[in-house]
Amino acid sequence: MKYELYYWPEIQGRGEFIRLALEEAGADYVDVARRGSGGRDKLFAMLQRKTATPPFAPPILKAGKLLVSQTANILLYLGDHEGLAPANEAGRLWTHQLQLTMADFLVEAHDTHHPIAKSLYYEDQKPESKKRAEDFLKLRAPKFLGYFDRVLAQNGSGHLVGRRITYADLSLFQIVTGLRYAFPNAMKRLEPKHKHVIALHDKVAQRPNIAIYLASPRRIPFNEMGIFRRYPELDRS
Amino acid sequence: MKYELYYWPEIQGRGEFIRLALEEAGADYVDVARRGSGGRDKLFAMLQRKTATPPFAPPILKAGKLLVSQTANILLYLGDHEGLAPANEAGRLWTHQLQLTMADFLVEAHDTHHPIAKSLYYEDQKPESKKRAEDFLKLRAPKFLGYFDRVLAQNGSGHLVGRRITYADLSLFQIVTGLRYAFPNAMKRLEPKHKHVIALHDKVAQRPNIAIYLASPRRIPFNEMGIFRRYPELDRS
Repeated sequence: MKYELYYWPEIQGRGEFIRLALEEAGADYVDVARRGSGGRDKLFAMLQRKTATPPFAPPILKAGKLLVSQTANILLYLGDHEGLAPANEAGRLWTHQLQLTMADFLVEAHDTHHPIAKSLYYEDQKPESKKRAEDFLKLRAPKFLGYFDRVLAQNGSGHLVGRRITYADLSLFQIVTGLRYAFPNAMKRLEPKHKHVIALHDKVAQRPNIAIYLASPRRIPFNEMGIFRRYPELDRS
Repeated sequence: MKYELYYWPEIQGRGEFIRLALEEAGADYVDVARRGSGGRDKLFAMLQRKTATPPFAPPILKAGKLLVSQTANILLYLGDHEGLAPANEAGRLWTHQLQLTMADFLVEAHDTHHPIAKSLYYEDQKPESKKRAEDFLKLRAPKFLGYFDRVLAQNGSGHLVGRRITYADLSLFQIVTGLRYAFPNAMKRLEPKHKHVIALHDKVAQRPNIAIYLASPRRIPFNEMGIFRRYPELDRS
């Protein structure tokens, strides 16, 4: 199967969770909007294409005739087809459940810089962002990280699910890298309390396909257009 | 299969999406925290229970030995087991994709009264709520409703997926009832522009099992503790 990924070409964003899964699986894929010129046009054409299953927003994965959208839904699909989740029902649902909890975490991380409106610039919602980021770092991030740390501690294999890598491990890796970029001061305080999460991050970073990917130009650097943004005023030391 | 639902006993909230699916399917279930006394204690006991698949938050569905959490994940399970989604892979993924887009819509509806912190009362984030609600009603709600209206118009059967009811139809019904409760003025303006969505709402309300449920004491009235809250200052006429 040759996959086509449609996502914004200049950010990691939600597309990165799909890129990591495709890279780990060694899948044959094209990151359509990043290849050649007119990348964004190809993405917009896909968004406007007549189809029985129109996407609401990127990322979109084209797999043969199938168009799949919504990050967690694409991962559910790739989990089945690329061996990135258990094959049995209980294992599939548990992996997906963890992913959906990460999706919630991600929305809250994003909203630290956009608590009022996606339609406004960060600069137009700065006082509100400071308040939201403070609550996020004090209560929400520890709650989510604590949960995943307990799941890892209890499972005992160094993976979130069973004894093998799943897309949930890859996604938690990505969240840690994002939090480190956006909130380096807060993460200095949080990391020692969430050692299992950090150990998983390190383990994923060392997987051969992931290590090659991270060192390649395919890995877009973090920036202030994506989900995780470094605004020092939101991350007081 | 006798199901047990664990959810906050005093609100519709996210649990309502599960209740609607169980009711439509005519499933044998217990809404554990609403039966007898000590309901919340039973919910807390479940949240603290030692299990290989700990939930992050309610709702939680117990189905035999399986504990499933995350609203969309529970619906994915019920879609398969209660005939509330197509059996083929493409149809299952499409139904789930729609559900995940509704989950995003729901977070944004919730955050109109909690844009800064879940840990604070609404009264402590009122000015920010006004701004967020204004953007939600002007841009976000029309964007989501417009999307679902186009999906329905294109599908042509009066259902979101294929020619039969799915959990996605039930969820869109619930979102319309919630928006009508929270934002009656805005909905007066928005409904005429989203006739397919409203027609689906009416169709779902008339399904025999749903009509019985809605008229029963099992349907908790909306209130100012749930996702959809009526704060008139957020819904100017």
